[in-house]
Amino acid sequence: MALSVEKTAAGREYKVKDMSQADFGRLEIELAEVEMPGLMACRTEFGPAQPFKGARITGSLHMTIQTAVLIETLTALGAEVRWCSCNIFSTQDHAAAAIARDSAAVFAWKGENLQEYWWCTERALDWGVGGGPDLIVDDGGDATLLIHEGVKAEKEFEKNGTLPDPSSTTNQEFQIVLGILKEGLQVDPKRYHKMMERLVGVSEETTTGVKRLYQMQSNGSLLFPAINVNDSVTKSKFDNLYGCRHSLPDGLMRATDVMIAGKVAVVAGYGDVGKGCASAMKAAGARVIVTEIDPICALQALMEGLEVLTLEDVVSVADIFVTTTGNKDIIMVDHMKKMKNNAIVCNIGHFDNEIDMLGLETYPGVKRITIKPQTDRWVFPETGTGIIVLAEGRLMNLGCATGHPSFVMSCSFTNQVIAQLELWNERKSGKYEKKVYVLPKHLDEKVAALHLPKLGAKLTKLSADQAAYINVPVEGPYKPAHYRY
Amino acid sequence: MALSVEKTAAGREYKVKDMSQADFGRLEIELAEVEMPGLMACRTEFGPAQPFKGARITGSLHMTIQTAVLIETLTALGAEVRWCSCNIFSTQDHAAAAIARDSAAVFAWKGENLQEYWWCTERALDWGVGGGPDLIVDDGGDATLLIHEGVKAEKEFEKNGTLPDPSSTTNQEFQIVLGILKEGLQVDPKRYHKMMERLVGVSEETTTGVKRLYQMQSNGSLLFPAINVNDSVTKSKFDNLYGCRHSLPDGLMRATDVMIAGKVAVVAGYGDVGKGCASAMKAAGARVIVTEIDPICALQALMEGLEVLTLEDVVSVADIFVTTTGNKDIIMVDHMKKMKNNAIVCNIGHFDNEIDMLGLETYPGVKRITIKPQTDRWVFPETGTGIIVLAEGRLMNLGCATGHPSFVMSCSFTNQVIAQLELWNERKSGKYEKKVYVLPKHLDEKVAALHLPKLGAKLTKLSADQAAYINVPVEGPYKPAHYRY
Amino acid sequence: MALSVEKTAAGREYKVKDMSQADFGRLEIELAEVEMPGLMACRTEFGPAQPFKGARITGSLHMTIQTAVLIETLTALGAEVRWCSCNIFSTQDHAAAAIARDSAAVFAWKGENLQEYWWCTERALDWGVGGGPDLIVDDGGDATLLIHEGVKAEKEFEKNGTLPDPSSTTNQEFQIVLGILKEGLQVDPKRYHKMMERLVGVSEETTTGVKRLYQMQSNGSLLFPAINVNDSVTKSKFDNLYGCRHSLPDGLMRATDVMIAGKVAVVAGYGDVGKGCASAMKAAGARVIVTEIDPICALQALMEGLEVLTLEDVVSVADIFVTTTGNKDIIMVDHMKKMKNNAIVCNIGHFDNEIDMLGLETYPGVKRITIKPQTDRWVFPETGTGIIVLAEGRLMNLGCATGHPSFVMSCSFTNQVIAQLELWNERKSGKYEKKVYVLPKHLDEKVAALHLPKLGAKLTKLSADQAAYINVPVEGPYKPAHYRY
Amino acid sequence: MALSVEKTAAGREYKVKDMSQADFGRLEIELAEVEMPGLMACRTEFGPAQPFKGARITGSLHMTIQTAVLIETLTALGAEVRWCSCNIFSTQDHAAAAIARDSAAVFAWKGENLQEYWWCTERALDWGVGGGPDLIVDDGGDATLLIHEGVKAEKEFEKNGTLPDPSSTTNQEFQIVLGILKEGLQVDPKRYHKMMERLVGVSEETTTGVKRLYQMQSNGSLLFPAINVNDSVTKSKFDNLYGCRHSLPDGLMRATDVMIAGKVAVVAGYGDVGKGCASAMKAAGARVIVTEIDPICALQALMEGLEVLTLEDVVSVADIFVTTTGNKDIIMVDHMKKMKNNAIVCNIGHFDNEIDMLGLETYPGVKRITIKPQTDRWVFPETGTGIIVLAEGRLMNLGCATGHPSFVMSCSFTNQVIAQLELWNERKSGKYEKKVYVLPKHLDEKVAALHLPKLGAKLTKLSADQAAYINVPVEGPYKPAHYRY
Repeated sequence: MALSVEKTAAGREYKVKDMSQADFGRLEIELAEVEMPGLMACRTEFGPAQPFKGARITGSLHMTIQTAVLIETLTALGAEVRWCSCNIFSTQDHAAAAIARDSAAVFAWKGENLQEYWWCTERALDWGVGGGPDLIVDDGGDATLLIHEGVKAEKEFEKNGTLPDPSSTTNQEFQIVLGILKEGLQVDPKRYHKMMERLVGVSEETTTGVKRLYQMQSNGSLLFPAINVNDSVTKSKFDNLYGCRHSLPDGLMRATDVMIAGKVAVVAGYGDVGKGCASAMKAAGARVIVTEIDPICALQALMEGLEVLTLEDVVSVADIFVTTTGNKDIIMVDHMKKMKNNAIVCNIGHFDNEIDMLGLETYPGVKRITIKPQTDRWVFPETGTGIIVLAEGRLMNLGCATGHPSFVMSCSFTNQVIAQLELWNERKSGKYEKKVYVLPKHLDEKVAALHLPKLGAKLTKLSADQAAYINVPVEGPYKPAHYRY
Repeated sequence: MALSVEKTAAGREYKVKDMSQADFGRLEIELAEVEMPGLMACRTEFGPAQPFKGARITGSLHMTIQTAVLIETLTALGAEVRWCSCNIFSTQDHAAAAIARDSAAVFAWKGENLQEYWWCTERALDWGVGGGPDLIVDDGGDATLLIHEGVKAEKEFEKNGTLPDPSSTTNQEFQIVLGILKEGLQVDPKRYHKMMERLVGVSEETTTGVKRLYQMQSNGSLLFPAINVNDSVTKSKFDNLYGCRHSLPDGLMRATDVMIAGKVAVVAGYGDVGKGCASAMKAAGARVIVTEIDPICALQALMEGLEVLTLEDVVSVADIFVTTTGNKDIIMVDHMKKMKNNAIVCNIGHFDNEIDMLGLETYPGVKRITIKPQTDRWVFPETGTGIIVLAEGRLMNLGCATGHPSFVMSCSFTNQVIAQLELWNERKSGKYEKKVYVLPKHLDEKVAALHLPKLGAKLTKLSADQAAYINVPVEGPYKPAHYRY
Repeated sequence: MALSVEKTAAGREYKVKDMSQADFGRLEIELAEVEMPGLMACRTEFGPAQPFKGARITGSLHMTIQTAVLIETLTALGAEVRWCSCNIFSTQDHAAAAIARDSAAVFAWKGENLQEYWWCTERALDWGVGGGPDLIVDDGGDATLLIHEGVKAEKEFEKNGTLPDPSSTTNQEFQIVLGILKEGLQVDPKRYHKMMERLVGVSEETTTGVKRLYQMQSNGSLLFPAINVNDSVTKSKFDNLYGCRHSLPDGLMRATDVMIAGKVAVVAGYGDVGKGCASAMKAAGARVIVTEIDPICALQALMEGLEVLTLEDVVSVADIFVTTTGNKDIIMVDHMKKMKNNAIVCNIGHFDNEIDMLGLETYPGVKRITIKPQTDRWVFPETGTGIIVLAEGRLMNLGCATGHPSFVMSCSFTNQVIAQLELWNERKSGKYEKKVYVLPKHLDEKVAALHLPKLGAKLTKLSADQAAYINVPVEGPYKPAHYRY
Repeated sequence: MALSVEKTAAGREYKVKDMSQADFGRLEIELAEVEMPGLMACRTEFGPAQPFKGARITGSLHMTIQTAVLIETLTALGAEVRWCSCNIFSTQDHAAAAIARDSAAVFAWKGENLQEYWWCTERALDWGVGGGPDLIVDDGGDATLLIHEGVKAEKEFEKNGTLPDPSSTTNQEFQIVLGILKEGLQVDPKRYHKMMERLVGVSEETTTGVKRLYQMQSNGSLLFPAINVNDSVTKSKFDNLYGCRHSLPDGLMRATDVMIAGKVAVVAGYGDVGKGCASAMKAAGARVIVTEIDPICALQALMEGLEVLTLEDVVSVADIFVTTTGNKDIIMVDHMKKMKNNAIVCNIGHFDNEIDMLGLETYPGVKRITIKPQTDRWVFPETGTGIIVLAEGRLMNLGCATGHPSFVMSCSFTNQVIAQLELWNERKSGKYEKKVYVLPKHLDEKVAALHLPKLGAKLTKLSADQAAYINVPVEGPYKPAHYRY
């Protein structure tokens, strides 16, 4: 796509694939609203007071239908919003179109290249006069990373005029980041400093981003407060687990139509995402083999009747390989060469480096046959057999299907709204330092409670006597902080 | 579409949506071949002898990728083939294009109207000079019905010159059939008689079609031998059960992206299809309620932990309704009015009359909002709330997704190939009378055996001593005819 | 036990372990009645008319609490009853005591030896003056076998004075049978002929017995009509499947307290019993491997996510081995030697020859350590490691636990009552020849229907219009005979 | 039983039911050792150094076969041990006999009354000269409670000569405790002070005991260091969850033989124990309804397809009621009156006050019919219908079956051994203050790792590069403290 910003009649900036899909997007947004009771409850509870009046929020998070409902919850509470996706394949173009037309500045389309991806991220952070956003909703931490790298580069530049050097790294994506910063520095050498100063804080959606934040916290480089939304129980034990249980088979079926029953599925990693994936594959009639580094998670897998082996043990007998580790170098090209013909290889963890895409792409004589977008068959020259790689190694549930369903995202995103409210309301109180915080348990329980009526559930009420007996308030929170659910 | 037959460069007739999709279809056919070991084994075993040399086969069966592999197995064995779909929404256009270009005469596209549908059926039966086909592969019995109705009409016409009268029925679809026959009679008053005379027999794929055949057998009106493929164990206990377990959630997810976990799903009917559907919904985290007329099936549902109630009991609390009964008038418009907002209503049984589509379409003031093809929201004027109907009440797994996956269809279709071979090889032996037959158990076991190696299974071999002890041949068949699996 | 018949105050004969357990037995019988709605409904429906008035019924069927409710249903309908168990370990002594005291002549205790076992069988058949019973309820066919062998021996004896020769067979149990017949012949050379002449018919409970009957039917040796109760849907698809799903883990837990989760369980055979066993082991968190000879059943196992291998493949890695085949020589002593220390070996199929108990007992240097009755550890001299064999290779659910639970046995036994009524009511009509019959479907459906209210189920009623559409009576039966459920 | 201490030939004190069961106990202990790899690994790793040389350990924890292996691990490491059970019904008498004969002083039998129970607890704490134990292994906190109450009473007595007054409380059990303290005070007014002074610390097994400890910590009354073993991941996420998944159905089946399939089971509480119970009931074919106060746990239940309602909603339709809450007053006598005839009521949470046993026992006209020990039918006078209460409202898995299986208890008890070692090794270092501690994650992971080889699992090893990427040591621990598994 030509990288130029467009504007709506009302003057709002955007860059999306096809504005004509806005009506379709609107219809699906309306369906999703019915499935997202937590977000709708936020609109009802907080909307009248317009708590985000005056707040600029930048989001870097998969631009899907569900995210559209999040964005319009933020705007319903008074915020101005700019948005980009945090994954090159995760945008639903009709969702982007509807939001761009109706509610917020959007820079996102399905199938960005990496240059486009970072251009979109920059646009979402660029609020023109007055610097950047007040708040960031981040997923995976790319918006946060860009600001931190930007500030670092500006400091270097100020100190000794050094510009970032893309050739200093072999990581293709980081080369692009450095290129953007280099270019930006020459225009405004204080851009990210101004952004940092304005920024009230970030709420981070996912395990990978949270890990980065804790690392920055522990080495003292974190520039603003952060709320770890991922570790709200109502996020990680729901979205990561039940979301993936839903969207892994969805992605497999849409991408390949393969019969899951009777197959051998290898799930690399048995954290929340891995648990959801293994459960889904088993439920669909596959025989599941788990690979793990952590003996506790391994023992959990065994108790569920799953086999725990190494990838090497099973690489040539399995039919489906799913990475969920959050680590890199899980399935290497040497593994892929040994797989059965048409074995399916996909990632639902985080980055595409869980799978050795670089090794695959550069394998001498390998042939790529695109069955359809996000479904490629790679044929090895030695054997003439091939494997099927989904979403080019990126999140297959977002690349090949539509991500997690609305209901479970409502849990996650209600946490996001509450986290953003916390940061904004306390922006002057000093409550939040440059550290990583988790939302208090009573808010976590509130998020859950907002989702029960939709499913017809009725809670039991504790008597005062019972509450005293177990030493909790009648109205909660009911569990100690260390409780694992 | 303009109803005119087109021709390939080689002169083969066809009518498909978009011939440019043939390459895409070919790629997916190649993937499917790897998943269909039974069909590929037939090519290996029977191909060299060309047993279908000289045979004309007409098929009326969902024109999907899997069916494409069936068709090319028939042609690999020497047959000439003409094909139409047996459902207006079930064609995969890229499959149709690939077959039309490479292998057989195809008349099918996704989204036919009823007039187009029957035109396609007629074309598939029309072999020009020399009458109709030698063999029919039927699904639901529409090709068989057309011939039987045609012969009946021709007899009436011969007797007293009466032409079929479309206005004699209120059934919209049957009006079209009568119209076609009326028109045809005026062109050739012996067309269906000639067809009947040439016809060696039919092999029928599914429960509904089989029921029609047994009714015709019992009232003496069956015009040619029929093999009931549906009741091969390797068909009904696999395709109906495990196929639907796969394709119901697939269809739901593609059509609505709805979170199944936590929802209440009503499955009407607990036969093989219902069992597969209930199992899938339960596995995905739904609470499943079954409706049944048959106390035995009801007791089976109870033993699996499912609730058995009537539709009236649950109509206003459930989220998802799936009909699997093979009967009509299961979910009426009066039920639909009482449902929750955005309740999903769909059919995976057989005809669209499981759901009262006519009642819905003609409900005063009802508003239809098409979210996307095959996904409609119908809003009732009294409440302003709506329900979501999939595939216009027709088979949702074929209308909203791509039908059953290749592996399980390989079981079904290997039975089809074997049935067609039986009919053709015995065409002069008198083995098959004008009755309905089931394939012998040893062939059923053979179909299963052909699918084991793909899944890494190893069978145990009976010793002669053990075989004698339980009084079966060492090489099978291993079970009495009445065995239920 | 001293093999002498005892008598109650009322003069009824019996031989049980401990009459003082009768009160305890009565309490558990009363609990079971609440769980056996089918039998209780028979008492209500048929009791007043006393249809069995004048009928003598001999039963050879596990003398459990559930069987007690069956016996008292037969007596409530007017029958006189004599009973023995069909398995040396399956009697519940408190059930036997309660019945012996209150209702019928019982000859059964837990832990009979084979000599005692056949003595009990003889006693149950011995009605004194006037020959044997009018009707037999058989399980596994031992009562039927004794009569057939008796008649055969009497014919031989009449022909040429030959007496049965126990030394003519190496089968230890058959030696005892021949011994009994030899002895009996010398007392009354027409005993079994008289029995045969009086006998109206037998209803057979289980797969093994049914197989024997069909063999006798096909070689023309069947001496009286037989109803195959096993193949009522409400028997084989419930008792065999759901009964074993319940009682396999029950037996394992009572015998060994072993944690099932995380273990590898091998289930030999994937018929109804094997399906129930595999399902239970999987549900308890085991990894299940199936062995099968039948490719169709093997493919079913694969579709459920189970691995299908041979015993040789897994003998040294599995933890639990369960035979369900109905065949002999499944687990041989050579297999057992290769197993892991404390691997558990058990049988829930039929006879103890599924496991090579003879090979084990006679293995040179093997050491048997009885942990508790029915739980033995056998230590091999070469390795010093041992395996744990349950119930001496006989039915472990009856030997180590209490058999199937009441509710599912109510289904089976209601079929028994109905079968006995059929035979008795039609004793003079000639309806039943010397063949094997299955109960008609409408009675099968009735059995199911009697069990629904207890579980809160509500059936849907077919409209006349719907019934006509699918061509069944409104009130059923709803399925063709070949339907597999 | 006469409450007098007996002595072995070697002079060790004990009081058990039947010393002749020691051989049987020994055989089952030997079986259990094979299933408890963590404990056996402790013997191998630590045994040679005899780290507990000189340590006196008192245990108050269900005196089962598994506990026997724990005790003999402690003695294998050099400890002297005295033991009592923490539940009146949980002792396995053969286990107690074997330990009493061979290894440690045991005071425990199945079916103690409350007076006997506290006498046993006192005996286990009574080490004669030199005061009490050095270390306590506690379950539920009764040994800890006795010492704390003892010290409190002694202080009162010292201050003003006040003796504990049993009539000051209506709680029957606490009356007994006060009685014991009163009597003891008159013998030795410093007994518990001496005990407190010697005591190095306690390791507590279960949720209830841990709650008490945290309350004492927070109000400053905790008298010695405590290690919370319950909240080791390898304890609460295994024993509580997978242990109960195993032992709930085990207890139900042994106590009632009831068919679980088809029934409605209410599980009160959806913590780890409730999750295990609900999973087991669902797997066995029951329909499960959960009651919860905590919206997060409720939402988890919903995602698993369970219904969440209040007890009032379902009290008259359910068949099985299981309490798992750790709270009191869950099922009251007013609920029980409304239940179906022969509804089963049981507790697997902690104390018998989850069920209103007092209300039941004192209900006017109620009739108790003991079917067998730990299985009572209580009949209400108004209706003549009854309910079945297991284990008199106490832990049904221990009262009616044999508790959790060895393998999962090996996880829990390996934590106990490690906790005891920690306390003992650091007794002089001041590492542990009078607070509650959790074991560090690397020890938790070690416990898991010790249990993997038995189940054939193979762990994947992190490369240094991967470890750096996710910022963990190559050898673990792999997760942050707040990780929930």
